[in-house]
Amino acid sequence: MTTRLLLLGAGRSASSLIQYLLRHAPTENWFLTVADANPAHLAPVLAAHSEYARAVPFDLADETLLEELVAQAEVVISMLPAMLHPVVARACVRQGRHLATASYVSPEIRALHDDAEAAGVTLLMECGLDPGLDHMSAMRAIEHIRARGGRLTSFKSYCGGLLAPAAEGDNPWKYKFTWNPRNVVLAGQSTAKYLEHGHPRFIPYQQLFARTETLAVPGYGEFEGYANRDSLSYRAPYGLEDIPTILRGTLRRPGYCAAWHALVRLGLTDDSVNLENPETMTWAQLIEAYLPVARLPNLDLALRLANYLGLDPTGEEMGRLNWLGIFSDRPVGHAHATPAQLLERLLSEKWQLQPTDHDLIVMQHQFEFELDSESRRLTSSLAVVGDDATHTGMAKTVGLPLGMAVRRLARGEVAQRGVLIPVQAALYEPILDEPGSGVRHHLHRRRELDFSRKAIRLSPIR
Amino acid sequence: MTTRLLLLGAGRSASSLIQYLLRHAPTENWFLTVADANPAHLAPVLAAHSEYARAVPFDLADETLLEELVAQAEVVISMLPAMLHPVVARACVRQGRHLATASYVSPEIRALHDDAEAAGVTLLMECGLDPGLDHMSAMRAIEHIRARGGRLTSFKSYCGGLLAPAAEGDNPWKYKFTWNPRNVVLAGQSTAKYLEHGHPRFIPYQQLFARTETLAVPGYGEFEGYANRDSLSYRAPYGLEDIPTILRGTLRRPGYCAAWHALVRLGLTDDSVNLENPETMTWAQLIEAYLPVARLPNLDLALRLANYLGLDPTGEEMGRLNWLGIFSDRPVGHAHATPAQLLERLLSEKWQLQPTDHDLIVMQHQFEFELDSESRRLTSSLAVVGDDATHTGMAKTVGLPLGMAVRRLARGEVAQRGVLIPVQAALYEPILDEPGSGVRHHLHRRRELDFSRKAIRLSPIR
Repeated sequence: MTTRLLLLGAGRSASSLIQYLLRHAPTENWFLTVADANPAHLAPVLAAHSEYARAVPFDLADETLLEELVAQAEVVISMLPAMLHPVVARACVRQGRHLATASYVSPEIRALHDDAEAAGVTLLMECGLDPGLDHMSAMRAIEHIRARGGRLTSFKSYCGGLLAPAAEGDNPWKYKFTWNPRNVVLAGQSTAKYLEHGHPRFIPYQQLFARTETLAVPGYGEFEGYANRDSLSYRAPYGLEDIPTILRGTLRRPGYCAAWHALVRLGLTDDSVNLENPETMTWAQLIEAYLPVARLPNLDLALRLANYLGLDPTGEEMGRLNWLGIFSDRPVGHAHATPAQLLERLLSEKWQLQPTDHDLIVMQHQFEFELDSESRRLTSSLAVVGDDATHTGMAKTVGLPLGMAVRRLARGEVAQRGVLIPVQAALYEPILDEPGSGVRHHLHRRRELDFSRKAIRLSPIR
Repeated sequence: MTTRLLLLGAGRSASSLIQYLLRHAPTENWFLTVADANPAHLAPVLAAHSEYARAVPFDLADETLLEELVAQAEVVISMLPAMLHPVVARACVRQGRHLATASYVSPEIRALHDDAEAAGVTLLMECGLDPGLDHMSAMRAIEHIRARGGRLTSFKSYCGGLLAPAAEGDNPWKYKFTWNPRNVVLAGQSTAKYLEHGHPRFIPYQQLFARTETLAVPGYGEFEGYANRDSLSYRAPYGLEDIPTILRGTLRRPGYCAAWHALVRLGLTDDSVNLENPETMTWAQLIEAYLPVARLPNLDLALRLANYLGLDPTGEEMGRLNWLGIFSDRPVGHAHATPAQLLERLLSEKWQLQPTDHDLIVMQHQFEFELDSESRRLTSSLAVVGDDATHTGMAKTVGLPLGMAVRRLARGEVAQRGVLIPVQAALYEPILDEPGSGVRHHLHRRRELDFSRKAIRLSPIR
């Protein structure tokens, strides 16, 4: 019997998910409907698969259409923006259809748990990269340690969307936008909270990029991680309520954070003030406006900024700032903007991913635990290089786990109903192992998405 | 013929306004209705004035009552929270009644301009202290300079709600709350923008309290001012579109800002994160959580903080922080709070105004202008000490200008309709001079609220 799948939203980040679903449709006996606001771009992809796939135009404002499409599917997959998921999830509950997404469980989604359970519906959330693979791979390692009698004392987990070394080129930040630029510019604008040796730790935004930790991923070099906003919320779903140290962080290449810290201190990441600037204001004028009035007005602008922030004028931070062109007469190009909008505009050009660039997804979990009265460590790393501009590392690591989760749902292998995230072995083990699947083979070959016991180096425990 | 006045909202800050209105009611032939959620506290005040005043219970949710009360008055005065003013203003427009408030013109109020004008209604806003007296006294000085042919090159204006020296006691901050504590804790949380010598100047929040200017008010000593969020918006209403330097600031006693800067850098003014702390967490534990992990764990907490922030361990900043008790085992007393909430809770106790304390309102305008090819300066200062815990400097400087503006409205001396602020001589001159009024005499005697030409020292121009 055919299982009908409905994919809502087919933007760029859905490329690898669609490829996965199409590859498995014949053997799994799926019929895939891709509903997108502009389905035209899907025509060439779906043409070769018309027996088991079609595209339909879709407008979320049309609730009747949403209800119809959901009713016609057994499993609904949403790659729409996360804020739209409650509408989709409610339709799934009404129609008795399962839902899978790569987005966080929002309070609105959580509130649907009882209704979904009563309706026999599974709302399977957080099945992408982060959240998604992070849960699955961390839980596999945690269960492995627990099964041997280990007691976890520390869990640090980092993830970042970066560049394959060849794509870093002469960009001293070694960073380009592979994700929403606005989110990157505004990252961390609160106070980060985590636990260290049983004590709460708070880092205000103004210190966040100065308090980093460095780590290495074999074969991919060194990285630095800054703390995410909320590391504490991971304790409950992972069953780590009493762990003394828990930290989640975001990865950048070494040096990025110190230079970004300078931009933060200067004030360029503030998104709450309209500067009332003309479009023709130059970057040099903008920087000048942030500096205290010059005592030595003939001093070079970059030197004055270095003085003001206490940076080495010939050091790496200044090198990175200079490379951005913020001391130049280049116009900011956007009138009446916030500093963050001007910075995003500049970076969107300087940090633009080129068609030939390959991105790199890096994830690392660091565990410390007590076993047989000894302190031990275990590290689990993942690095995924994008295939090309379509099947980026981001698209693969978000889309493939989601596709694999859908496969479990479609096969009826997920018994639990209500709102779920993939922290139970019954759910994540088959996904991490994906037996006999072309995807797993594909991943194995590249030694990338492989979270099998060997790949995460769970043994020997050191 | 009796003119009926309606005062909406009679909280503590309305004390001097009510006193003013009652004092003038017999001679001006007013009948005053005070509408308040809890009018009981007004009984003793109004008992002696029952011929021309009454109190009525009021609930803004009761729109029928609001409409009735407005319909029964010729002039409506609102001391309600500013966010409630659009509802009141719309009722005034519908009923053809004038309105006076001490609050800023919000976009919603501005949008009522045409309707108010068509209805023959004056919505007279910004008639308190700041906004209010600041406009009036600045405009008198500006017009004075212009009338002599001067060309303004710089306008800096500062205002602060502080303490009479006797009330400062041994409090090294020389500050107590005379206004909404939450607003004081969250003050400046954006980027301040102003103009200096024709160039825009931006100060991010993290630098705001480190970039202060000092000034003196004769007879009241020294103060320091930090820049307000938006100084640019004062150019248009004051007719200063082309002025090269314009800055508005908030006053504190010297030393306050450097110590507050330390609290900002530490992260204690962030209101965007729930720390998930227990109520029993101590202040020492909270401070500890913000410090990098101790390399020398036995080092005193205050010393480690001084090291971290680069402060002199025996300096004044540390003295002020220490006086707050933030290194003590005192519990924070509020579970699951933001840092700003915890700080507000602590300060509300440490900075509590005592019944015998007198507050102090300070305002200073500093003008620079060119006249006869010479650069000249003019300074206009105001200092108002509170009479007692009821008739505070704040209540007087907010309430009396508003009462005087109401008097002009009630007399039919305000010809302009629509949304107004007191920047026109026809409006502010009689208020600043208040001829033959007991209030002016009262103010004169105290040499406080007097913005007459002499008091603002407009001549000789130096």
